[in-house]
Amino acid sequence: MKIVLLGSGNVATHLAKALKVEGEDVVQVYSPNLNHAKLLAGAIEADGINDLNEVEQYADLYIISVKDDAIESIARSLSNVTGLVVHTSGTTDINILSSQVRKAGVFYPLQTFSKDKEVSFENIPICIEANGEIQLAILKNLAAKMSRKVHELNGEKRKILHLAAVFACNFPNHLYALANKILNQNGLDFDIIRPLIAETADKVMSNLPENVQTGPAIRADENTLTTHLSMLTDMPELQNIYQTLSNSIKLTLK
Amino acid sequence: MKIVLLGSGNVATHLAKALKVEGEDVVQVYSPNLNHAKLLAGAIEADGINDLNEVEQYADLYIISVKDDAIESIARSLSNVTGLVVHTSGTTDINILSSQVRKAGVFYPLQTFSKDKEVSFENIPICIEANGEIQLAILKNLAAKMSRKVHELNGEKRKILHLAAVFACNFPNHLYALANKILNQNGLDFDIIRPLIAETADKVMSNLPENVQTGPAIRADENTLTTHLSMLTDMPELQNIYQTLSNSIKLTLK
Repeated sequence: MKIVLLGSGNVATHLAKALKVEGEDVVQVYSPNLNHAKLLAGAIEADGINDLNEVEQYADLYIISVKDDAIESIARSLSNVTGLVVHTSGTTDINILSSQVRKAGVFYPLQTFSKDKEVSFENIPICIEANGEIQLAILKNLAAKMSRKVHELNGEKRKILHLAAVFACNFPNHLYALANKILNQNGLDFDIIRPLIAETADKVMSNLPENVQTGPAIRADENTLTTHLSMLTDMPELQNIYQTLSNSIKLTLK
Repeated sequence: MKIVLLGSGNVATHLAKALKVEGEDVVQVYSPNLNHAKLLAGAIEADGINDLNEVEQYADLYIISVKDDAIESIARSLSNVTGLVVHTSGTTDINILSSQVRKAGVFYPLQTFSKDKEVSFENIPICIEANGEIQLAILKNLAAKMSRKVHELNGEKRKILHLAAVFACNFPNHLYALANKILNQNGLDFDIIRPLIAETADKVMSNLPENVQTGPAIRADENTLTTHLSMLTDMPELQNIYQTLSNSIKLTLK
């Protein structure tokens, strides 16, 4: 397949490399910033462009992988293409595309991507949706080449999944950062809690999290909870988070 | 070393098995519940007892691994022993022991233990403290046999570490549980986000979490934040947590 990639952020970068591995022919990478476009394009032997008028009109697939609020205007510039146009967003409705182009779809890889961290697509769930059977077949085929986990999900379910992903990924990562803040302020290194973080995630690979909750809140250990809250007096924001999450854990006891 | 283990919970269970692997001689396991004592004792060829008066008086090491508020009364029953008495708590001061026994210490493995999940002690940081050089040497030696990561920490630092561990382990696990709640209410399975959880933890093994934060809050993507909050209207507790943690992530942008 001849593919045009519109975007050069974290998702676009990882997607581009995974498509390349599968032997797909990514011909162009677009970014409003030409340097960004060329940098990613260079890594996958494509052309980097920063002008939407230069987009190849006869590609099979256009992948829009940009911030949610930029998807619509890019889709508008593709209204004349005959190929399939997809976005990679968890929250954005497919209609934002199908109102602009004839063949529309969604190709949402459920993963957290950071530029310098390699990930194997094989285990990444890819959620697909399309506005027609042929389009869906194209996406299903492409997704199945890249991943062992392909899910056909409508926009409603995809949004739910994205919301759950914020709880399961973005928030835990922020809590790791707060833990690091506490450690650093007291001359301790993040390295000391890395094994704990790894095991916490590993435990829920074969268990449901509600069955393996540990810590003072689930033990209703009021002494420790009070001690911890008092240790956070100088960090009211963290104290509030500690209180909110501990209360939520205690609710599961009822 | 001849060791008596007082406790039969998650920490005690994993510790007992790890001590056995290292060839240490755990002679007794105490629990107020005789069945619990015998169950764990049976697994490591020790005697199970439920009467503190039956505790062997000439062991080298007594490990008190029970709920924090039960440590003191058990320590009191050991006031006549000549061996080293340690607890395994992150929050409890060493003084609670040294006021009762001559040789006191702390042996705190920084990990989350669940009964049915095997863990290798090799990578678990063990934090030690003692009320004398000889006691410290004994604990250092034992810890180094079990783990590659031995930290000599005073009670103040250990408490900080325990607090950080709540943020890095107990709270993330609860957030996994909330994600599962959202998924289940919408007919989706937890399995779909397991790869995301694994990668989120894996990313911070070689990065600092504040450098790899992703998601709508760090992008200041107000549309998605508003959509997500409105999706949680029927779950005010989760809505509050979403708001609190998103605000905290946004604070890091300043």
